[in-house]
Amino acid sequence: MSQWVRFEDDGEERFGCLMGKDILVHTGTMFDDPQPTYVRRPLTAVRLLPPCQPSKIIALWNNFRQLAAKLSVPEPVEPLYLLKAVSSVAAPGAVISRPASYAERIVFEGELGIVIGRICANASDEAAAAAIFGYTCVNDLTASDIIARDKNFAQWARAKSFDGFGPFGPIIATDLDLSGLSVRTEVNGVERQNYPLDDMIFRPERLVSALSKDMTLLPGDLICCGTSLGVGSLKDAASTVSVTIEGIGTLCNTFVQ
Amino acid sequence: MSQWVRFEDDGEERFGCLMGKDILVHTGTMFDDPQPTYVRRPLTAVRLLPPCQPSKIIALWNNFRQLAAKLSVPEPVEPLYLLKAVSSVAAPGAVISRPASYAERIVFEGELGIVIGRICANASDEAAAAAIFGYTCVNDLTASDIIARDKNFAQWARAKSFDGFGPFGPIIATDLDLSGLSVRTEVNGVERQNYPLDDMIFRPERLVSALSKDMTLLPGDLICCGTSLGVGSLKDAASTVSVTIEGIGTLCNTFVQ
Repeated sequence: MSQWVRFEDDGEERFGCLMGKDILVHTGTMFDDPQPTYVRRPLTAVRLLPPCQPSKIIALWNNFRQLAAKLSVPEPVEPLYLLKAVSSVAAPGAVISRPASYAERIVFEGELGIVIGRICANASDEAAAAAIFGYTCVNDLTASDIIARDKNFAQWARAKSFDGFGPFGPIIATDLDLSGLSVRTEVNGVERQNYPLDDMIFRPERLVSALSKDMTLLPGDLICCGTSLGVGSLKDAASTVSVTIEGIGTLCNTFVQ
Repeated sequence: MSQWVRFEDDGEERFGCLMGKDILVHTGTMFDDPQPTYVRRPLTAVRLLPPCQPSKIIALWNNFRQLAAKLSVPEPVEPLYLLKAVSSVAAPGAVISRPASYAERIVFEGELGIVIGRICANASDEAAAAAIFGYTCVNDLTASDIIARDKNFAQWARAKSFDGFGPFGPIIATDLDLSGLSVRTEVNGVERQNYPLDDMIFRPERLVSALSKDMTLLPGDLICCGTSLGVGSLKDAASTVSVTIEGIGTLCNTFVQ
């Protein structure tokens, strides 16, 4: 397993993979034959960036059986999704502010993120599996009271696209075996979500295959796999939300009102 | 008024503004102090590209009074929109193919497109007007039978994001006075849409101001203003769809089944 990060160091954007507490700096591009250099930087000396720059962010709705059962919605026969604006991306550790134009509920949603590694269109499950570069943690923040505000048009994209509403990271883990893993979300140190990835309705290779029949997926594209039980709103003046998946680590962001 | 194009010439991507039947090639970036060169290229000698590369495409729903009345939906109190994947972008003149995975209705939607010229967040109507670089023609192609296929989740993003479903161009016109203008859509030479832009519910500066309170708009971002009466499906083996707005010209693409 490799763990990839992007970071800013002396004003320059760089990337590399983790070696213990250091980053082994690479050159080229993360998704196409990256080359190691001889430079190592301590992880604590740099500022982490979002681990890649998606050209699109696809966010699943209703992709976990336990949540579907709780909400009494049938399990979908094909993946259901919206697009989240790429301008919503935030770095691991970033402080995220409530949008000035919105005063109602904002909910956290801890999720697994899939990062695409190669151009992927009309892919079989096998080809889709090979197009997955790795996995990351996502907090799919949502201004939930916007969604149903208009009776005739569900405002999913708007509710999820405010600046800062798409933090992901801290790293992208390649060759991660998801079986037995769970997504654990804490808010100010209190566990709020802890759900098994095995409960996913459309698993990554199935999901990527299906999505690749709708649109061409590109290296760096991010697929947020949907959330499960335990979603809730952020009520405190400052809420530190951490999303943890073993092998990826913890995505931690503070949301301020 | 300036009319900007992007094009490929001898395998290189370039841009410039129209001077009669020629392109006056510019250097730098289109949105930030582009510099004219001494090079002119005949428009007929180059292959047009989409006139810019949006980081996001925002597509309005229910933004014309006549269509709202026909569909018996109330005029919205705030802009309603979805995001269209940027991988759907197609060039003026491009041939667009029916997706292999979808056999049902595909509809054309002739629209006005707004192209953003500068970073725009939380903008007043005045600041929003200043952030508009110019206007273009859009054909917001839609796999309309996908939208309501799932009873619990309207699949707007998916229906509008297939590869090729976002042609726009042929140019971006700056300093265009929209008053009195109309959007005219022809399919295989037969007029199907001819609706006045004055019927728009949220006009460009209002729209850009409102959207900029939801997310930061970036140079090159495309806002599709929504369509009006006359939308229909593409039934022939080959349908040439042209969308014309005076001052912008005609966006022409052929859709093949």
